Amino acid sequence: MTRAPAVILLSGGLDSATCLALAREQGFACYCLSLDYGQRHRVELAAAGRVAASLGAAEHRVVKIDLASFGGSALFGGAAVPKDRPLEPEDQDIPATYVPARNTVMLSLALAWAEVLGAADIFIGVNAVDYSGYPDCRPEFIAAFERLANLATKAGVTGELAMAIHAPLMGLGKAEIIARGLALGVDYSLTRSCYDPDAHGRACGRCDSCRLRRRGFADNHLADPAPYH
Amino acid sequence: MTRAPAVILLSGGLDSATCLALAREQGFACYCLSLDYGQRHRVELAAAGRVAASLGAAEHRVVKIDLASFGGSALFGGAAVPKDRPLEPEDQDIPATYVPARNTVMLSLALAWAEVLGAADIFIGVNAVDYSGYPDCRPEFIAAFERLANLATKAGVTGELAMAIHAPLMGLGKAEIIARGLALGVDYSLTRSCYDPDAHGRACGRCDSCRLRRRGFADNHLADPAPYH
Repeated sequence: MTRAPAVILLSGGLDSATCLALAREQGFACYCLSLDYGQRHRVELAAAGRVAASLGAAEHRVVKIDLASFGGSALFGGAAVPKDRPLEPEDQDIPATYVPARNTVMLSLALAWAEVLGAADIFIGVNAVDYSGYPDCRPEFIAAFERLANLATKAGVTGELAMAIHAPLMGLGKAEIIARGLALGVDYSLTRSCYDPDAHGRACGRCDSCRLRRRGFADNHLADPAPYH
Repeated sequence: MTRAPAVILLSGGLDSATCLALAREQGFACYCLSLDYGQRHRVELAAAGRVAASLGAAEHRVVKIDLASFGGSALFGGAAVPKDRPLEPEDQDIPATYVPARNTVMLSLALAWAEVLGAADIFIGVNAVDYSGYPDCRPEFIAAFERLANLATKAGVTGELAMAIHAPLMGLGKAEIIARGLALGVDYSLTRSCYDPDAHGRACGRCDSCRLRRRGFADNHLADPAPYH
């Protein structure tokens, strides 16, 4: 039996690797899409390739787009990546690492590829529990994109194919995500999450992303297998 | 008084030039965005630059993204651009020139730039009357994107800035669009609409885009000032 194709947004980090493993477990042929958008932590793109290969992806594609030319995020360099800030900020500020409209752009590109592949399913590894306060990681955002996707495409006109946006990590905390991934055989030593790695690709251990990740492993009584400097 | 910034999607064609003129008339400082997405009619990008300059845009930016690598449209070469087909097809087929999710991708990038600029307004020159049967030119698509935009961005969290997606040509036919633009001083000789121009940038006169455009000028008792081969 031919497996149905799905597009998986794959950053090279812990969440999207787990998301890919979940999509594979559901029986999809996984077409993985990474975005080279000018991020300072481009080491994640090589990690994405390793993750895709290790989890048997049908294809891994990196699309280049210069979001950095718009500016507006510490992830493009210039402004510093915040370190050692509380993981549950009381003021709910959106952090400096927020990239304007990034998930909207990524989902749009996933939609373009899905339509060409004839895929009705798109997976994105966002989660609203340990989400660092980004607006485009909320369930209402995902629901609005799904609605849009069904109006934006041929499927929306012909009614042949209803697009579904899957965010299977939405309700999970980092520790649960790691536990699920380990059960599915994800090799987290291949993944990279740090916003501010050194020249050797080693994690800083102090940005939001590192600290959420390390706490997730600690909650599972495990050490994070990723390299830290 | 400082004019409020708006992002205008500018293809170099007749519709988006008119859309820019309307945004300028409404008092916006116009930041024009064009997408170099691998289209075979790249001559439109040079046209977009000329149109932006002639209508006093604050800035014109071309962002490169390789949608052509996904395939799926006659506009990327390979399949032929359809010629001489009826302008009001009875079967409502979506033509071969449809680019999967193009308007979703373009609006996403406009949203990214708008958020960085602090702009609450995005203009897109789609119209549902002479729309060639594209799903992402319908009013319900625009409304769904506006809803998404307000969930996807900082504005959606803080409530500071409500994003509006303007599609001022939505209810207009080609002849009306041209009449409006002429009244606002648009120089249509600068614009290019053909899906399949020759090596000198001259229009074919036979694709859907050429034929809708020529009929629009004819309905105004005018000759189209664009060059044809």
